[in-house]
Amino acid sequence: MNHATLYGVGVGPGAPDLMTLRSVAILKAVPVIAIPLRSEYVPSLAWEIARPNIGDVPGQERLFLTFPMTKDPERLRPAWDEAFAQIGTRLERGLSVAFITEGDPLVYSTFIYLLGESRQRWPEIKIEIVPAVSSITAVPAVTLTPLADGQERIAILPATYGVDDLADVLRQFDTVILMKVGSVMPTVVAALEREDLVERAFYVSKATTGQQRVVHDLRSLRNDRCDYFSMVVVAKQDRNGVLAGRQFAAAAPGSDSGSGSE
Amino acid sequence: MNHATLYGVGVGPGAPDLMTLRSVAILKAVPVIAIPLRSEYVPSLAWEIARPNIGDVPGQERLFLTFPMTKDPERLRPAWDEAFAQIGTRLERGLSVAFITEGDPLVYSTFIYLLGESRQRWPEIKIEIVPAVSSITAVPAVTLTPLADGQERIAILPATYGVDDLADVLRQFDTVILMKVGSVMPTVVAALEREDLVERAFYVSKATTGQQRVVHDLRSLRNDRCDYFSMVVVAKQDRNGVLAGRQFAAAAPGSDSGSGSE
Repeated sequence: MNHATLYGVGVGPGAPDLMTLRSVAILKAVPVIAIPLRSEYVPSLAWEIARPNIGDVPGQERLFLTFPMTKDPERLRPAWDEAFAQIGTRLERGLSVAFITEGDPLVYSTFIYLLGESRQRWPEIKIEIVPAVSSITAVPAVTLTPLADGQERIAILPATYGVDDLADVLRQFDTVILMKVGSVMPTVVAALEREDLVERAFYVSKATTGQQRVVHDLRSLRNDRCDYFSMVVVAKQDRNGVLAGRQFAAAAPGSDSGSGSE
Repeated sequence: MNHATLYGVGVGPGAPDLMTLRSVAILKAVPVIAIPLRSEYVPSLAWEIARPNIGDVPGQERLFLTFPMTKDPERLRPAWDEAFAQIGTRLERGLSVAFITEGDPLVYSTFIYLLGESRQRWPEIKIEIVPAVSSITAVPAVTLTPLADGQERIAILPATYGVDDLADVLRQFDTVILMKVGSVMPTVVAALEREDLVERAFYVSKATTGQQRVVHDLRSLRNDRCDYFSMVVVAKQDRNGVLAGRQFAAAAPGSDSGSGSE
């Protein structure tokens, strides 16, 4: 009977103090933290977020695993083979492994592929996911933009894979979040301009970190190759929230307006 | 010059240890915690989540505010007038107020309306939002269901306001999250059955709490009036993730399959 657990632990959007109490407790307790890298030469953002809260843990292994930034399965295969071998060896010895991801482990994260394979490779191993603050809510928090209220709807699209139907989506949804806008920002700006939506959008990169950048004039980014950790939020001006379009004064004509109690 | 801040603080989906370090630090530091209630007779879930982490803070005020569960602006208006008066009095005395919400403060929360009004009522007051783990990611974590990977898209709909176009939405999106399914569960089950999607859905209520309930056979809930804090997640079987549909063995014919390294 193997009592090891494979944890998928989200460390949140960037600020170390946006980690949850549970993620800190688990990362301090496990014998192995698995840390994905984009390349051997670029530090792990997830680990930079977690490290100030975890510090040194005597005897704990930090297992760095490199996954190239590519959609090509041929290039990803050797990296995953190595990762499965390294993680598997430890789990089979009964050592729990916590695989960290920035943001939440189930939202466009490296952990998702590991999760899918793990259930087949290690059927006896317990799997536990520690949800985290996702950029889905951290980015709107930065700009004080409500995501949805009342009958409003939210759509989340990875911009890398096309924004051609953005106008259609905006007809059906009140807030649209475009993830991974980094390399396709010129296309995103063009699509928003075509639909006369550029004024309704804002751009945020590296939200909640010391390098956070917020841009309201998206046209200024037209020619930029933006940061990978960036997002565009498009929110309709006419909201459909519980009280929207029905101001207090309008809802009760003749009575004091809502501002009368100030 | 007034240095008071109005905080919108999310306390996460239900488990106290899914609060962030920042939310705990702010709630321990502010002179006033504002706590929304659905009724004077029902304890605040948000406060039940926060209290174990905050404990007693000498001199700190816990300001309970009741907002009836209704979509009727006539019934909400007196509650909001009272809330604005109570919060405003404290802010004007220079006291920072942290308004707590379960989940994230910008996702279908009572705080959104307060945010909208606050910028007009108290233009000199700083507003800060502390994002939190939302049920959007906490519920999929419970059932180990990826939300989106690669080119996949996510749609979030409040079921209370209709699920008639669920089939359309599922044609365009890979994962659909139905919030607030409590009172409309029979309609949701009927819509999923009509579209032959009932097998692809699961139901979770009070995720991450001691009363968590997970149901995979949604038909068994056909006649239930379910809990308010419940959600249905519908995920397509055929995923569009980065490596989906392109198994390692298929991607590199003739070479070792991905499972060969086990």
